[in-house]
Amino acid sequence: MFLPHQSWPDLADYVADESLAVVPLGSTEQHGPHLPEGTDYLIAEALARAATDRTGYLCTPPIPVGVSSHHRQFHGTMWVDPPVFRDYVESLSRNLTYHGIDRIVYVNAHGGNVQHLREVGRRLHEDETAFAIEWMWDESIPGLIEEVFETPGPHGGPKETAMIMHIAAELVREDRLEDARDGGAIFDYEAELVHGARIFYDAIENSPNGVFGDQTDATPEIGERLFEAATEQLVALLEWLDDQPFSDLVASPHVDPRST
Amino acid sequence: MFLPHQSWPDLADYVADESLAVVPLGSTEQHGPHLPEGTDYLIAEALARAATDRTGYLCTPPIPVGVSSHHRQFHGTMWVDPPVFRDYVESLSRNLTYHGIDRIVYVNAHGGNVQHLREVGRRLHEDETAFAIEWMWDESIPGLIEEVFETPGPHGGPKETAMIMHIAAELVREDRLEDARDGGAIFDYEAELVHGARIFYDAIENSPNGVFGDQTDATPEIGERLFEAATEQLVALLEWLDDQPFSDLVASPHVDPRST
Amino acid sequence: MFLPHQSWPDLADYVADESLAVVPLGSTEQHGPHLPEGTDYLIAEALARAATDRTGYLCTPPIPVGVSSHHRQFHGTMWVDPPVFRDYVESLSRNLTYHGIDRIVYVNAHGGNVQHLREVGRRLHEDETAFAIEWMWDESIPGLIEEVFETPGPHGGPKETAMIMHIAAELVREDRLEDARDGGAIFDYEAELVHGARIFYDAIENSPNGVFGDQTDATPEIGERLFEAATEQLVALLEWLDDQPFSDLVASPHVDPRST
Amino acid sequence: MFLPHQSWPDLADYVADESLAVVPLGSTEQHGPHLPEGTDYLIAEALARAATDRTGYLCTPPIPVGVSSHHRQFHGTMWVDPPVFRDYVESLSRNLTYHGIDRIVYVNAHGGNVQHLREVGRRLHEDETAFAIEWMWDESIPGLIEEVFETPGPHGGPKETAMIMHIAAELVREDRLEDARDGGAIFDYEAELVHGARIFYDAIENSPNGVFGDQTDATPEIGERLFEAATEQLVALLEWLDDQPFSDLVASPHVDPRST
Amino acid sequence: MFLPHQSWPDLADYVADESLAVVPLGSTEQHGPHLPEGTDYLIAEALARAATDRTGYLCTPPIPVGVSSHHRQFHGTMWVDPPVFRDYVESLSRNLTYHGIDRIVYVNAHGGNVQHLREVGRRLHEDETAFAIEWMWDESIPGLIEEVFETPGPHGGPKETAMIMHIAAELVREDRLEDARDGGAIFDYEAELVHGARIFYDAIENSPNGVFGDQTDATPEIGERLFEAATEQLVALLEWLDDQPFSDLVASPHVDPRST
Amino acid sequence: MFLPHQSWPDLADYVADESLAVVPLGSTEQHGPHLPEGTDYLIAEALARAATDRTGYLCTPPIPVGVSSHHRQFHGTMWVDPPVFRDYVESLSRNLTYHGIDRIVYVNAHGGNVQHLREVGRRLHEDETAFAIEWMWDESIPGLIEEVFETPGPHGGPKETAMIMHIAAELVREDRLEDARDGGAIFDYEAELVHGARIFYDAIENSPNGVFGDQTDATPEIGERLFEAATEQLVALLEWLDDQPFSDLVASPHVDPRST
Repeated sequence: MFLPHQSWPDLADYVADESLAVVPLGSTEQHGPHLPEGTDYLIAEALARAATDRTGYLCTPPIPVGVSSHHRQFHGTMWVDPPVFRDYVESLSRNLTYHGIDRIVYVNAHGGNVQHLREVGRRLHEDETAFAIEWMWDESIPGLIEEVFETPGPHGGPKETAMIMHIAAELVREDRLEDARDGGAIFDYEAELVHGARIFYDAIENSPNGVFGDQTDATPEIGERLFEAATEQLVALLEWLDDQPFSDLVASPHVDPRST
Repeated sequence: MFLPHQSWPDLADYVADESLAVVPLGSTEQHGPHLPEGTDYLIAEALARAATDRTGYLCTPPIPVGVSSHHRQFHGTMWVDPPVFRDYVESLSRNLTYHGIDRIVYVNAHGGNVQHLREVGRRLHEDETAFAIEWMWDESIPGLIEEVFETPGPHGGPKETAMIMHIAAELVREDRLEDARDGGAIFDYEAELVHGARIFYDAIENSPNGVFGDQTDATPEIGERLFEAATEQLVALLEWLDDQPFSDLVASPHVDPRST
Repeated sequence: MFLPHQSWPDLADYVADESLAVVPLGSTEQHGPHLPEGTDYLIAEALARAATDRTGYLCTPPIPVGVSSHHRQFHGTMWVDPPVFRDYVESLSRNLTYHGIDRIVYVNAHGGNVQHLREVGRRLHEDETAFAIEWMWDESIPGLIEEVFETPGPHGGPKETAMIMHIAAELVREDRLEDARDGGAIFDYEAELVHGARIFYDAIENSPNGVFGDQTDATPEIGERLFEAATEQLVALLEWLDDQPFSDLVASPHVDPRST
Repeated sequence: MFLPHQSWPDLADYVADESLAVVPLGSTEQHGPHLPEGTDYLIAEALARAATDRTGYLCTPPIPVGVSSHHRQFHGTMWVDPPVFRDYVESLSRNLTYHGIDRIVYVNAHGGNVQHLREVGRRLHEDETAFAIEWMWDESIPGLIEEVFETPGPHGGPKETAMIMHIAAELVREDRLEDARDGGAIFDYEAELVHGARIFYDAIENSPNGVFGDQTDATPEIGERLFEAATEQLVALLEWLDDQPFSDLVASPHVDPRST
Repeated sequence: MFLPHQSWPDLADYVADESLAVVPLGSTEQHGPHLPEGTDYLIAEALARAATDRTGYLCTPPIPVGVSSHHRQFHGTMWVDPPVFRDYVESLSRNLTYHGIDRIVYVNAHGGNVQHLREVGRRLHEDETAFAIEWMWDESIPGLIEEVFETPGPHGGPKETAMIMHIAAELVREDRLEDARDGGAIFDYEAELVHGARIFYDAIENSPNGVFGDQTDATPEIGERLFEAATEQLVALLEWLDDQPFSDLVASPHVDPRST
Repeated sequence: MFLPHQSWPDLADYVADESLAVVPLGSTEQHGPHLPEGTDYLIAEALARAATDRTGYLCTPPIPVGVSSHHRQFHGTMWVDPPVFRDYVESLSRNLTYHGIDRIVYVNAHGGNVQHLREVGRRLHEDETAFAIEWMWDESIPGLIEEVFETPGPHGGPKETAMIMHIAAELVREDRLEDARDGGAIFDYEAELVHGARIFYDAIENSPNGVFGDQTDATPEIGERLFEAATEQLVALLEWLDDQPFSDLVASPHVDPRST
């Protein structure tokens, strides 16, 4: 159930009976010469809507701008500063609880948002407002990704390329896939460390065109497989979460000092 | 040019030559029994994209959640607290200037955002970061609105109904237009005042179903007229703004104390 | 009862029996060549004290500096930034509730404060701390103002001039009334819009000397009429507010999803 | 020159030639059974206006509510939280510099404000915005105070009583001076410490009626002597400050590491 | 009981039975040519650990960086801005209450921290989270200090020199004691005032080498006497505080308006 | 060079010639039944001091309390909230630049601090204040750790046990190593995920006694090897960082839109 398309009386049963909301989040940032800047929020929205269409859970509109300053050297990258992003998501989440929501899944498709969504989730958890968790689509299907790609790339690689080929094929510049690969890099996290320290702050330091991996490995068919597999995982997660009694989602109490 | 659909090299000419950005903003909040909760951001996005398609200016993705706590009693209304909203828009706007943007139009379709967008615009103006102005579609065509509707309503009335009939007809519950009218109210601002003071805080105090005016007056044809007229105004505003030298957009200097 | 002039035991009965406070707020900002910079807080204080003298309600000292950066180009204008103003008024208001106050009227005489006082009022309303409302004197007597002036002006015009002639005649530079008119402007809000957008941020953009309207229309007699009429409205508002049970001032509950 | 009473053109010479502003600050808080709650801001305003009348320096309106939660148990005490107070004074001060002010004297009559005004002054000093200093009237004439009173009291004692007798005699409840003394306490700071720690937070812990010292020692004549002596000190301070080149008021540079 | 050296099960009895914590705080800032920059936190930690070793109360690790910008001109001085310092101590203190702590002594050895610790203590007191008080070692033994030194100095003088001679003799540059004295100053607070105003912000304005008093008066024997005397005071304070029922530590209620 | 042990003139050469500072950070939090709560900051300090002793770089005192609420259920765990931690480290770091520091290594031994230190580093990087990087000791020697332990554990396992055996053997409860292992867990990150989502917030959800891995594999000899290897890496990092021209540490410029 996509909230922006419902009128308020249509939500009466949901408010009466349900307590789960899905919030898609991504970013608007460079994704190489071949992918659109909205890649991440388009993926997040597509997955969130597919999973909520199949299950009937409530899906909010996507939050399209996230924490992306590490891509700012490339034209058009948008971002908000991390404290602002956290506060925006926190405020939006707290206010959802006014309608009886007590569990939230942040359907996320941008790595730069992960730690911030977890920090927001922790705030809500620690004061027992709600149980909100971050779900990043590619972390739900690591086996499949490993199976279909040699170099999935952390950003703008064949993984995201295949997804957009499936979701919005017209937005992929097919004629630039080789350029994307040849002008980018194979990311080797270990190799980037200097004596154990991460010394880079921006994507441009690791890749001239901002992306990683071999984009020519992407196909719409693989995209569809990834999409379906991730949607299945998300559906399962929503059902699992809906099944938990709220008391099981609340923080554990302090260890009893008299029992040890 | 819709930023989320561009890849970064596609923006090179724009970054090199242009300095204007359009940011659509709305809300996700109750709009009565007949309109979808996303009404405001759907209108804002549609207008912003139409005007930028026609002119080639840059359009960011829409910000779908705004300042709407005054609608919270109705199921599904989402909102962020005002300081959070202002900071989110400010951060996003400041960061746009990294790409050479120095003038921004907030294409807004939610009255509750107006004063906050102006406050953000003032911050950017006072420190000379950028010239950002708020534009609310219905304030650009008051004559036409007056001509076509007797009771346009400040919220969820025939004005917005007609617009959604034009933009996304499938989201209007046509069979509830009479209910919308009969279960709502004709808003009379003066009559709501008590000895000059505004004593209401929430829409529910003024309208049982959250909306105002006579929705049965709306038609898709009127919607199209409104849409075209407002788009024309927006196009004209963008062109006017683009024509101004930045020095004319900067705050006036202090009055010279020696000249008076 | 003017709080700054009372000793604490004098307030025992009030604290025991009453729950209403009046807080006058204005600004210290340019008011043209003929009016003193303190015009707004002097008006607010005079009205608040008159109405509380007549009714016995508690009146705090006036807050003399508000949100006025839009007048800063003119010598001497003082201001605080909007978030600071809101926090100051909010803190002061929350702390008043420690003495049992649960309803507050902000007697305001500066347009630039309105939206900020409403935002503070909303904060207090939403967490049920207190019911605080903004009252702007000239909005309580629109008919009379229209009757006595052709061009009342939104700032520094005959309306405020007449009030200061009545309240503190010695502070009006009578010999500059024609200068005020001739060096200023007749404000036409509609005419200032560009395709529906408000493109000005500072008063100096609309008026060379910072004021609007025809100040030569002001007389002390008109000032007295305005003052008496507004005081009457304020008295009536205080009495109305005092009569409300607090339960009627609290926010409406969420619409019951099972009843629709 | 009292800013609220000037029109903006009257300030042209001052803005052109001068750079000093005086800001009176006090509080609205209990001052025992005999003194008005506005005692502190009335004293601050009276001294600031006397000294600026005699010298021609610019005096802003008084800030009447300060940091006073330690008096909150007594009816009517008003206060703002310390961070809010600091931000309000800081914002107001920074904005004064827009008119060329680069030195400010906070004429203060409330002990609870002292550390906060110094913290604000330090902020402005460290970023070289302005040189702002706190001046507390009784600290400028310790010898005279010691001479005229045995127990001046830190709050609501004969010192403040005499000042109000001189400034606004009608606000002193003369018939309660003995009550004030008998129902209060002689403050002995050392005696209040527990093994070196200050364990009290509120005035009520040290004095049943909130005040200290023997108020029956106060007379209007003593009040006048105190007022004149303090005004003289303030005049001298303003003249001293005005004489300093700004370069002498700026923070010292870092010690040159090569010279030691 | 030094918390950093305990494993968590070792604390079970304490958590079950006790509610007092000791938090040592100092600074890392210049202390003249002869004393180490860590002087203040080394003293605070030594005293806190001695007193808690003798009594069994819980001692946290020392907070080594405080509010010291007034020493910044001298090489190596570290500091955090006052709002940050307050928030850090407040957060740390609030979180201690999760383990049942409801009373805290801030064992402080840096004058620049005093007012900030009191402000934090007040915050915790006013919302009844905990009773936290600041204890500055030298304020607990004023008689002894006066007895053993002619010019104890507020900073880097013989008082602190003797303490470090006792606590960490190897860190005192004995050969620079005369330099410390001759290159510094005898601080005369009164003499530094200009017409009652404190016009200095940084230590360098009062002392060329940053310290005050005659350091050659310090000996390890005096240091030991000071240390023992202060430790005794602290032990007594901890025992006193532990003995108080929490209801006695809570803020006094509002004066009953019906009883006066 | 350990800053707290230096007097300010001892730092003159460093301030004149060098621009690197090392800041050790850890936490005070439960580390199982066998390790002290200060484990992380003791490790961080020991490594930072060893590396700076060997190279002469400046080492600040350790920051002993970090982001650890996820361990709060176990007695004695201390923490500050993440925004407070970030602001404290940021303020401290910015202020170090006053002495000419332009590069900082955060020597960190607590996983919970990592993302926050990187966020602070990014803030300083983006406004070109300084180049600050986070270094976590165990990430610098992954090969060795893998070689010596089968189950190093992310927290309180043999890795940290061995380090404390080497650094402060007296603080290890040797007799509880088997308890630590048997009462804890082998952490399997993948197994903890639910359909790709991390659903735990606190350590207690994964381990009954708060620790992971087989602590009986730890020996002082292994601790020494780890310590020496990590120190070597840190020394190499400091030397590498010191060798970089500052211009190489500054953020890359925006991609030139005219060159693509």
